[in-house]
Order: sequence, then C-alpha cells, then structure tokens
Amino acid sequence: MTRIAIDAMGGDYAPKATIEGAVWAAQDYGVAIELVGKEDIIEEELQRIAREGIKQNRAGLFQHKIKVDLSKLDIKITQATEVIEMGEAPGQAIRKKKKSSIVLAVDAVATGSSQAVVAAGSTGAAMASSLFGLGRLPGIARPAIAATLPTMKKPVVLIDAGANSECNPEMLAQFAIMGATFSKSVLGVEEPRIGVLNIGEEASKGNTLALNTYKMLEEMGERINFIGNVEGKELFLGDCNVVVCDGFVGNVALKIIEGSASMLFKMIQQEFRQDILSMVVGLLAKPFMKRIYKKINYEEFGGALLLGVKGITVISHGRSTAYAIKNAVRVAKEAVESGVNKKISEFYEG
Amino acid sequence: MTRIAIDAMGGDYAPKATIEGAVWAAQDYGVAIELVGKEDIIEEELQRIAREGIKQNRAGLFQHKIKVDLSKLDIKITQATEVIEMGEAPGQAIRKKKKSSIVLAVDAVATGSSQAVVAAGSTGAAMASSLFGLGRLPGIARPAIAATLPTMKKPVVLIDAGANSECNPEMLAQFAIMGATFSKSVLGVEEPRIGVLNIGEEASKGNTLALNTYKMLEEMGERINFIGNVEGKELFLGDCNVVVCDGFVGNVALKIIEGSASMLFKMIQQEFRQDILSMVVGLLAKPFMKRIYKKINYEEFGGALLLGVKGITVISHGRSTAYAIKNAVRVAKEAVESGVNKKISEFYEG
Repeated sequence: MTRIAIDAMGGDYAPKATIEGAVWAAQDYGVAIELVGKEDIIEEELQRIAREGIKQNRAGLFQHKIKVDLSKLDIKITQATEVIEMGEAPGQAIRKKKKSSIVLAVDAVATGSSQAVVAAGSTGAAMASSLFGLGRLPGIARPAIAATLPTMKKPVVLIDAGANSECNPEMLAQFAIMGATFSKSVLGVEEPRIGVLNIGEEASKGNTLALNTYKMLEEMGERINFIGNVEGKELFLGDCNVVVCDGFVGNVALKIIEGSASMLFKMIQQEFRQDILSMVVGLLAKPFMKRIYKKINYEEFGGALLLGVKGITVISHGRSTAYAIKNAVRVAKEAVESGVNKKISEFYEG
Repeated sequence: MTRIAIDAMGGDYAPKATIEGAVWAAQDYGVAIELVGKEDIIEEELQRIAREGIKQNRAGLFQHKIKVDLSKLDIKITQATEVIEMGEAPGQAIRKKKKSSIVLAVDAVATGSSQAVVAAGSTGAAMASSLFGLGRLPGIARPAIAATLPTMKKPVVLIDAGANSECNPEMLAQFAIMGATFSKSVLGVEEPRIGVLNIGEEASKGNTLALNTYKMLEEMGERINFIGNVEGKELFLGDCNVVVCDGFVGNVALKIIEGSASMLFKMIQQEFRQDILSMVVGLLAKPFMKRIYKKINYEEFGGALLLGVKGITVISHGRSTAYAIKNAVRVAKEAVESGVNKKISEFYEG
C-alpha cells in the first residue's frame, strides 16, 4: 500500500484540519499515512476524530459529517519536536530545525518509509527541505510547482505556480517538459498542448522572458507539442493543457483565481440571504451551485506538485481545510502511482 | 458638454458594437461624442441604430433592446480613411498611418475638439498615439493602464494593467501615485490604500522588482498611504484601493479575472439547462444572478484609463461589446470631470 507522509503541523488550520484531511484520505483512497509532528498532539487529534468524526464545512456553503473508524486505517506516527513557522527564512530554518515536522516528513520519503510527502505549511520550507532532502532529478536546474486548475474542459497545469520568483527561459523550458509529463502521466492527457502564459497571442508579444521562452520552445520542435502563447482569458477554455510562466506570475495568477472564485460564491450567498423569497430560491438553487462549486473549488485541486525533485512533494496551500488536505493526499498517491518522476528523467536521458 | 472621441473602427466587434456603445453612452450619460473612422460606415451604422435600436446581449444571459433617438444626441463624425490592425507594430503603424482612426481620435483630444478618447482597438496603437499625440505629464516616465476591478467593497485600481511589460521600481512608484490620484478623484476614495501585488505579505517576499518597489514606497513615508504587499487572494476583499505591479503581471491578472468569471457564469448557465426542473430553478434564480453579474461583469469596468499622458485616453479591451464601450465612455467622462491629470501634475510639482 502506498504510504503518504503528512506534515501534521503544517497549514493555517493545523494540526486539526491537516490531520483530519490525512485521516479522511486514508479512509477514502485506501492509502497508508504517516503523520509527522508532535506525537501527543497527533494522538489527541486522532482520539477526537475517532469520537467526533470529521465535520466538513466548505466555504460555509455545504456541511456534512464523516464517521471514521481508525482501527481500519494504516496510520503511522513519527515524532517531530520542532515546527517551522510561516515567517522563518526557509534555508536557515531547515538547517536549524532538523527535528521539524517538514524536514522529518521529507526525510520519511528519502528513507523510503513513505512514498510521498504532503506539506501545507511554509511553501519555502517545503521546497527547501525537498531540494535538500531529496535532491534534484537529473537534467532539472530548478524544481517548480505544478498547480492543476479547472477549465471548461480538462484541467490545465500551471507551472511554475510559485517556486521560483526569478526565472530564465531555460528554466521555463524545463517546466514545460515537467508539466507535460505530469499532464500525460497523472491527468491522462494523451499529447499535452503546451503554451506560454502571455499578454497576447502573437510571438512578438510579452516581456523578455516570455519572448525568449517562446523561441526556445519553438526550437524544441517535435519533441514537445508547443501551441504558442496563451492569454489569461483562454486558460479556462481548456484548449491548452500545460501553461508555463515564472513563479511570481504563476503564484499571483493562482491566488487571483482562488480569490475571484471565492468572491463570486460569497456574493451568491449574500444574494440568497436577502429575505425569505431569496432564501427559498437559494435553497432550490443549492444543488446546482454545489455541483459548480465542486467543479471549480480550488480545494479539489488543493495539492500542487513540486516537480523536479527525486521524490513526490505535494504542496497544499496554507489555508488548506481538511478537504483540501484530503485531495492533496490523493494527488500524492496518483503521482506516486503514475511514475511521473521516472518519466521526466527518461526525457532528459533520452 | 463634455465631448468624447471614439475610435469607431477599434475593437473586435467594431464598427457595430463600438458605435452602438458610443451612441448608447451619449443617450444615457448626456455626453457629446465624436465618432472617428470611415464616414460612410459610421453613417450607415447610425442609420441602422436609428431604425433598429441597440440589441443588447450580455454573455448570453440577459437580453434587452434600447431605443435610440439620434435627433436628441450631439454626434460629430470625423473622417479617418485608415485603420490600424491588431497585428501591426504600434510605433511603425502610427507613423505610417497618419489618417488612421486611432491617430485622428487622439488628435481630436490634442486639438481640443474632444476632451477624451476611447479606444478598443490595438492597445499598443492607442498607447503609442497617445504618447506621441498628447505627450507625458510632467514627472511621469511611462504612462500606465489603470484598470478598475470589482471587490467585496469598493473597486480596486490595478496599475499597470498592460502598458509596460518591463518595469523598474521608479516606474511602479509613479504608478502608485497615479493610481491613488485616480482612486481619490474619480472613484471617491478618501485616503487610497496602496499595496504592491506580491506572492506573500512579508516585506522579504517576491521578485527583485516587488522587493525594491516595497522599499521605495516605504521610503515615501507620509506622502502616500502604503499598506505593504497584497496577495492576489486579498485583492477581492477590497481592503486595498490601489495595487501596483508591472504591466505583464497586471495584464495576465486582468485577463485571468475575466476568464475565470466568464467560466463560472458559463458553468451556471450549463447547470440551469440540464432539464425542465433545472430550467425552472434557473428562471427563479435569474434575477439574483443578474445582480451578481452586474457587480462583477468586467464590461461594467471595461474602460481602463491610460494614466500619465496629457489628456484622457480610455482603453477598452479588444472584445468590447456595446455595453463595455458605453461604460468606457462613462469612465472617460468621469475622468475628464475629475481633473485627475491636473492632480497628478500637482503631486509632482507640489
């Protein structure tokens, strides 16, 4: 059985939501889990979950309760006495706090105790410990975060979604390869169509990085399926399967998508709370909204993959709910089973 | 009466939608308009509008028809025999096509025939002709596009939304001043709160440009109301009134917001077309959706201001419908009446 290590102390709502999500995933997806963090706190949370189950409240819209039978789940606990806080400088923090939950969770993958790690704490610390603890794949200069976003058709992979604030075209070309391999092996897209995130469709549009990345991808010829520039608006049509950009642009884009969707659903809620009539209509419309919410909810896609390291690291964003963590564990499991890293290495080894 | 010049040939749906929008604005906002383009085409469109009115179909959701009485409107037609196409290199095109609709529309402002220009064609050509035809405001190195976006509270000004793909911190500091002046004088925000669009809240986060812009804005002290970094997600909470970024990031952000909102509304439409029951619920929910759509519809905010030139240039995006053009004319009128340019100059001269 695939085992996924989870930094139980990572995330704004940790340890509660993080542990709940991990347990929920173990129950729903048949994975073994390894909870890394302060043992007493983890034990306490597990007991609470056994008693109370998992209360799930997605964006205040839909509530339900999940019963949990811990005796049927394969849960390992690994003690980590330290925690890296959000504000700490990642590089320093992972060297100083060798017994921190994120460092030991990555360590669990390095030693083979688990096959992947899910991290919802400091993205910088997760990246730094993955780079340090797992090392880079051959041929990859810098790992990048691959986020999966909903579109009108198949999901699109946005890479880099935040690992590298400053990039060069060579890096973006590698991101394209990694993203396409992920799209193919994990998302099942036959010939992933790769685009450069840009401010216009023409080859002459964009900043220096976009211009040079375009040229570089074009020069790769038939090795990749490059379709040219993609504008932000086209992203959601789903005609492009992998869109590359630097980590600054990608992270801004990712958070803006989350923010605007969240605003829309809040506005819908507000409209349906005006008076009795609106509440009745709101009640009738609820199942429809629920289906849409499920389609676009970033928590469904919560786990983004750090591609380019020798191991599977799934970065779930800081505000991860239990539901987001659960899905991050699912992404980790799928990534392990897809052999995505082996396939990336194969591209570079020829 | 304020007169607004419109590049009648500019926009994907021009001349039809562009002329319709201009006429609609003249009727609704009591502005005089100057339609710049091929006279015979403009005449023909005006006759059609007089006969048929304006059919309005917003994102396929809501349809209605507006009657127009041309005899009550102040419409001037200015002949322009050439048109700059979307693909042309802006700098060359404006030098080569001196009789193009965009060049002559800007010229109308330069000569005082109109007080502002609305352009929905090539953004590059609109910028280049404005820079060349109107000149820069004192103290401003590069004009920038200020886009107004919906939030849970007051709209936020995103600057630069696409004028400059490559920026330095000095430019972003100027964008901050221009954006804040716009927020105060046009949107009526008392003490506009200025933020740097970034991938984290801490001062240590981001790429070199964001880091240095943060420092520069901080050093401006009490001259501006700088609140620090703002993440994409927080943008929509409305606690920040002006958010600065380079034009590449801003343009990607803008188009992603449009794209994701558009996808959501398409999904809602799809859900409400599944069967008879869903159609009934959809019909009941329609007024609520309509209100939300109106709040967030980018067409409402369609017109973005090119700030930093000696004159008012409103850039409406390429896919502008008549409704978007109408609102772009409204923005132009408000900008003229607010004296925003005078106030920007005062900041640098004061």
